[in-house]
Amino acid sequence: MPDFAEPLARLINEFKRLPGIGQKSAQRIAFHLLRAGREEAEHLSQAILDVKDKLGFCALCNNISDSELCQFCRDPNRDPKVVCVVEEPNGIVGIETTRQYEGRYHVLHGALSPLRGIGPESLKIKGLVERIGKGEIEEVIIATNPNVEGEATAVYLARLLKPLGVKVSRIGMGIPVGSDLEFADEVTISKAMEGRREM
Amino acid sequence: MPDFAEPLARLINEFKRLPGIGQKSAQRIAFHLLRAGREEAEHLSQAILDVKDKLGFCALCNNISDSELCQFCRDPNRDPKVVCVVEEPNGIVGIETTRQYEGRYHVLHGALSPLRGIGPESLKIKGLVERIGKGEIEEVIIATNPNVEGEATAVYLARLLKPLGVKVSRIGMGIPVGSDLEFADEVTISKAMEGRREM
Repeated sequence: MPDFAEPLARLINEFKRLPGIGQKSAQRIAFHLLRAGREEAEHLSQAILDVKDKLGFCALCNNISDSELCQFCRDPNRDPKVVCVVEEPNGIVGIETTRQYEGRYHVLHGALSPLRGIGPESLKIKGLVERIGKGEIEEVIIATNPNVEGEATAVYLARLLKPLGVKVSRIGMGIPVGSDLEFADEVTISKAMEGRREM
Repeated sequence: MPDFAEPLARLINEFKRLPGIGQKSAQRIAFHLLRAGREEAEHLSQAILDVKDKLGFCALCNNISDSELCQFCRDPNRDPKVVCVVEEPNGIVGIETTRQYEGRYHVLHGALSPLRGIGPESLKIKGLVERIGKGEIEEVIIATNPNVEGEATAVYLARLLKPLGVKVSRIGMGIPVGSDLEFADEVTISKAMEGRREM
């Protein structure tokens, strides 16, 4: 790597720490900021700090929130009988883009991963059990990711929550819409076969 | 797009302004920073401001520099008889990665583009002519980008500089190493044919 002037080298290094940004993208962004007005750089710099200073987590569902309860837990139009469990707050973003789900959420902040030392006590499961204990919740939809950790978490939660008298369901898995059978892996295809629906 | 808490929405918007970052990447980075320690966020935030505060341009070649002359213009081991002309400072980065060029540079900060109203007076050409006027430079290698604007700039510079008594050359164009003829466009192939070398 060629030598950059120190402040530029440091900015490139900081950008490389972000997910999905490699050396070339980091350089491109750093050169862009160098050319941009000071105001644009200041806005970005301040927005980064504000996210750390002004945001916390919802006391009920652990979603990102700028007040004690997040926008979904505050919203009286959201059905309190259905709770969708996701690994991370960005899972909520994905589900909200559909504009079809009208229940509430619960964020685990992770998934079970014995190999990385993440057991049930590392996840925000206790709060979920407490919420169910209050008797209002009728169905828990487990929307953890369709990978080994997410599946393990789903199985664990199902065993834990069913005895509490709630319906526990798992999001459907199969061939993504707009995709091609040719490019789907065998596990996805077998899930799609299992999850077939009568027409 | 779903509603994010205001500071998060603002951070996502700021990241989307950067080159090569779309909605999904911006969200991913914003969520990463939300989870990261405050120190990482502070370092990034400060590095952005430092690049604006501590860097300027070299008085001789217009490269990015943290002092009056950039690292290449300061370096006595660099051959002052050869100057490589690039559009932007990141062009220097590309050439330096080869570790083969030992001359100096000149950064134009753009390329001719009549459609976008960029004429010769918008580029840092005057300083280059002055440098040549001092009599030390023997060859100018034009390394503007191989597209319409870069080619127009190269032709303009060649006409301007040759009468000053310097050798003017253009970087070679052709099939990129490791690539395949099958995927090269016709203009590149015709440049490769023109630029063929006896073996």
